[in-house]
Amino acid sequence: MTETRRVAAAVLIIGNEILSGRTKDANLAYLGLELNKLGIQLREARVVADIESEIIEALDALRAKFDYVFTTGGIGPTHDDITSACVAKAFGQTLIRHPEAERLLRERIAQMGVEVTEARLKMAETPEHAELIENPISGAPGYKVENVFVMAGIPRIMQAMFEGAKPHLKGGVTLESLTVGSYVPEGTIATELSLLQDAYPDIDIGSYPFFFDGRPGTNLVFRGPETDRLEEAAARLCDLIRNLGGEPVEGGVEVPKSDD
Amino acid sequence: MTETRRVAAAVLIIGNEILSGRTKDANLAYLGLELNKLGIQLREARVVADIESEIIEALDALRAKFDYVFTTGGIGPTHDDITSACVAKAFGQTLIRHPEAERLLRERIAQMGVEVTEARLKMAETPEHAELIENPISGAPGYKVENVFVMAGIPRIMQAMFEGAKPHLKGGVTLESLTVGSYVPEGTIATELSLLQDAYPDIDIGSYPFFFDGRPGTNLVFRGPETDRLEEAAARLCDLIRNLGGEPVEGGVEVPKSDD
Repeated sequence: MTETRRVAAAVLIIGNEILSGRTKDANLAYLGLELNKLGIQLREARVVADIESEIIEALDALRAKFDYVFTTGGIGPTHDDITSACVAKAFGQTLIRHPEAERLLRERIAQMGVEVTEARLKMAETPEHAELIENPISGAPGYKVENVFVMAGIPRIMQAMFEGAKPHLKGGVTLESLTVGSYVPEGTIATELSLLQDAYPDIDIGSYPFFFDGRPGTNLVFRGPETDRLEEAAARLCDLIRNLGGEPVEGGVEVPKSDD
Repeated sequence: MTETRRVAAAVLIIGNEILSGRTKDANLAYLGLELNKLGIQLREARVVADIESEIIEALDALRAKFDYVFTTGGIGPTHDDITSACVAKAFGQTLIRHPEAERLLRERIAQMGVEVTEARLKMAETPEHAELIENPISGAPGYKVENVFVMAGIPRIMQAMFEGAKPHLKGGVTLESLTVGSYVPEGTIATELSLLQDAYPDIDIGSYPFFFDGRPGTNLVFRGPETDRLEEAAARLCDLIRNLGGEPVEGGVEVPKSDD
């Protein structure tokens, strides 16, 4: 039997630095792509400041609504790292110094030859029923509480933790995607495109206009669970493009990201 | 009298392509930085899919909670551009073809020498009580309804619309920021830093660890409304860094973005 269940996830990005514009988030797009490979669709993201009530409110809303929630940021050793305390409160669990996390952390601290400080050991704090997620990069683990995965904000550490989270994830249907582009402007093809979308309700057709090389054009992305259907819809789009005097480009017209 | 009111804003990013990872959002960081220059702090952001109920729910939550909300994306001519219909519904207003928007759009369409299509004219649709925001880049205007500003997703168009939104915005206190970095690791300075934060409750101290040139270090960002206070707190931090054997770097240690 084909697995057709849709599994949905949300990302909760925690940190003043993302909202102030100091740091550009790099985790959202990564997680969107990687989750889809596992058959999990990223359906919502929120960015909140390092404020307890805001973190808890967002976490509670997202964990009730989605199969999985991934948090990034706020699990370091400093005063503004309050994610673990918030996750514990949200789940009504005590914040403990997790024995295995402390062991891993002390091991790494010894390797690095730095001092064992209370602040460093804060990184071993988790809600009492957390399951650890290994962090081969910097020692301090991420963790899972029910359907929530708590990860670091620094991209290479987040990515390593996400690898550790994968065995805990059960995906549903994986969405394939197929892109066709052309120098037919969006406003010229929009009506036919809408009819095509109506004819393929199982496919999500996204339209991305661009202006490149002095000419307007459109890349069209088909996303859905069945490759045959995507190819069928894309073939119909290619006919539409030719009827409008355009030349379809399979894979889409490559344009500099800023114009897309 | 010094203006000390905090003015808070949220950004609502609308579009499947951001969640699928196809497109990396570039508007959030821009708006965070630019809003602060106007004395408006970006306090939350949400990313939602092109689904009516999701857009309306997020919009209603954010517009009730913040002084201003800025939406990006979903105002083009295609079937997946549903932002204006959703904004109209959220405000209980009729979606109309706005006469002045239509005039601007027809003018641009004529300039471009393309066809006037129903799809193109869809870009002139706004909630009935919208105030237009000019779009010098591509003609189709953004608009304002009460405290909500509706803008395009393409960064250079969004930026042009944001310029047009500025005269409508009333800021409060502007937060200044000051950065001091050093090769003292976060876990070494965290305890003293927490005491420093307690001593300066009017300042927000953010701690950003890095690993660069084979050594761990930390950049510390002080944000607050009064430059004198920031300088005072930063001077105390410099002393702390020296006491720990480090060398403070004003402006912060420059590190490649991926390690930050």
